[in-house]
Amino acid sequence: MEWIENRKILIVGLGLMGGSYARALKRLGFTVTAIDRNPEAIEYALKERIIKEGSSGDGDEKLIREADAIVSCLYPAVFPDWVREHQHLFKPGLMMTDVTGVKGCVVYEIQSILREDAEFIAAHPMAGRERSGVEFSDDRIFRDANYIIVPTEKNTAEGIRWCGRLGQLLGCGRITVLSPEEHDEMIAFVSQLTHCIAVSLMTCSDNTHLVDYTGDSFRDLTRIARINDRMWSELFMMNREPLLRQMDVFLKELEEFRDMLDKGDTEGMRAKMRLSTERRALFDK
Amino acid sequence: MEWIENRKILIVGLGLMGGSYARALKRLGFTVTAIDRNPEAIEYALKERIIKEGSSGDGDEKLIREADAIVSCLYPAVFPDWVREHQHLFKPGLMMTDVTGVKGCVVYEIQSILREDAEFIAAHPMAGRERSGVEFSDDRIFRDANYIIVPTEKNTAEGIRWCGRLGQLLGCGRITVLSPEEHDEMIAFVSQLTHCIAVSLMTCSDNTHLVDYTGDSFRDLTRIARINDRMWSELFMMNREPLLRQMDVFLKELEEFRDMLDKGDTEGMRAKMRLSTERRALFDK
Repeated sequence: MEWIENRKILIVGLGLMGGSYARALKRLGFTVTAIDRNPEAIEYALKERIIKEGSSGDGDEKLIREADAIVSCLYPAVFPDWVREHQHLFKPGLMMTDVTGVKGCVVYEIQSILREDAEFIAAHPMAGRERSGVEFSDDRIFRDANYIIVPTEKNTAEGIRWCGRLGQLLGCGRITVLSPEEHDEMIAFVSQLTHCIAVSLMTCSDNTHLVDYTGDSFRDLTRIARINDRMWSELFMMNREPLLRQMDVFLKELEEFRDMLDKGDTEGMRAKMRLSTERRALFDK
Repeated sequence: MEWIENRKILIVGLGLMGGSYARALKRLGFTVTAIDRNPEAIEYALKERIIKEGSSGDGDEKLIREADAIVSCLYPAVFPDWVREHQHLFKPGLMMTDVTGVKGCVVYEIQSILREDAEFIAAHPMAGRERSGVEFSDDRIFRDANYIIVPTEKNTAEGIRWCGRLGQLLGCGRITVLSPEEHDEMIAFVSQLTHCIAVSLMTCSDNTHLVDYTGDSFRDLTRIARINDRMWSELFMMNREPLLRQMDVFLKELEEFRDMLDKGDTEGMRAKMRLSTERRALFDK
């Protein structure tokens, strides 16, 4: 298994996702290192033996130079600058991937500035938790999760294969391929719109006294309302047009349902419920 | 334990909820009987030994006469008529409760027609599943669930105590008391609005091809989109005013969030997310 043990994978940005990658890859035998501006995150990961080496500044250069592959778990707004400033340290042939929740505004920029002898292949594991920070990391989040590879014309067949193999090693289930544009439209609907709905359910009225009465429906619909406000507002702004489009589609539909109720159109409501039931059945694992 | 074994509890309407009550009560040693218009439901419950006796017509009278308590799991639209037609068979001192998801339009009517020597005390266990029918019944749905007693001025202290004790025996966690009006406004928000949102998420666009890409967020927000269209449309219509009110509050909030995104008001969105995070933390068990 030398081909695994000799491979050094550097995690850049050691939060919930970075820590979860580190746990999964370390378990498989890879040599995992990490850099993060926060010394406490590195200290925690070293103590927990999630990573072999880590740095919050001084040792960054060494770890970048040694890496065979990099997983960027940086916020999308700082990711391109990080590449600009550090890519002179990359090994020739370096493979880099990421976990960023929006792609169009990141992938093309990174690929346009990246050295010719390195490859960036974007990926999005559809996994996460309602907490942030390496101390909440957990590699079980990948189990059977959907994993999306988001290549462009600049990517090689080898890069795409490498990225898919990484998703498989993490434990993901379905591994699929989408273009950056397809990815961003999809993510606006299944992830960003749902987060906006969950947040709005919590903020639309003071409902905290309802905790003694509620059932699972409300809990399920608001689980993701515990949200990292910095990260998600950044993701929303970077995907503004698709998200606005999906919000408008949903708002129109809910208003239509509301008007049916207002008019007493029971048959109309029932038809929508039957369609909903039929479609949702496909999503049950 | 004679005080349990000698007690005969009749379930009227043996679907998912009725079957789950029967399983829980039978496990504790009560003598559980059931009537349902559908002979297959009764046959199933007898075969599975969930009930001791059952009837779909001919034997109804005997089972009603013998019952010490009745749990009505009928649809709200037919419940009052059932009481009108059968209450001459009730034992003096009979206790009756229900599981109906709306209260205002049911409780007062039942109590106004009910014989003086019987008591109806409304209850709402906040539990269920996305399937209907006795074959999906499961008494684990009550475990730690919220259970709401919904008394009126007509109820006695003994009736309220009996009803709460029943919730406790089912395995429910928090047992609380609300007036019919408080219950219906609360349920419009935590249950009915969330079902409308889940249905609208499934019907607003053809999204079935997204099954290969989605994460847990979308699954969680649409779990309840598999819905019994007859029952829920009836519940919505019976609680139309509170539900319209709650839908309007939610629609206004989501539109406000949409407009913040449109205008690039990142700080506004972050403030909402922080409020949402703070409130939602209280709901984690």
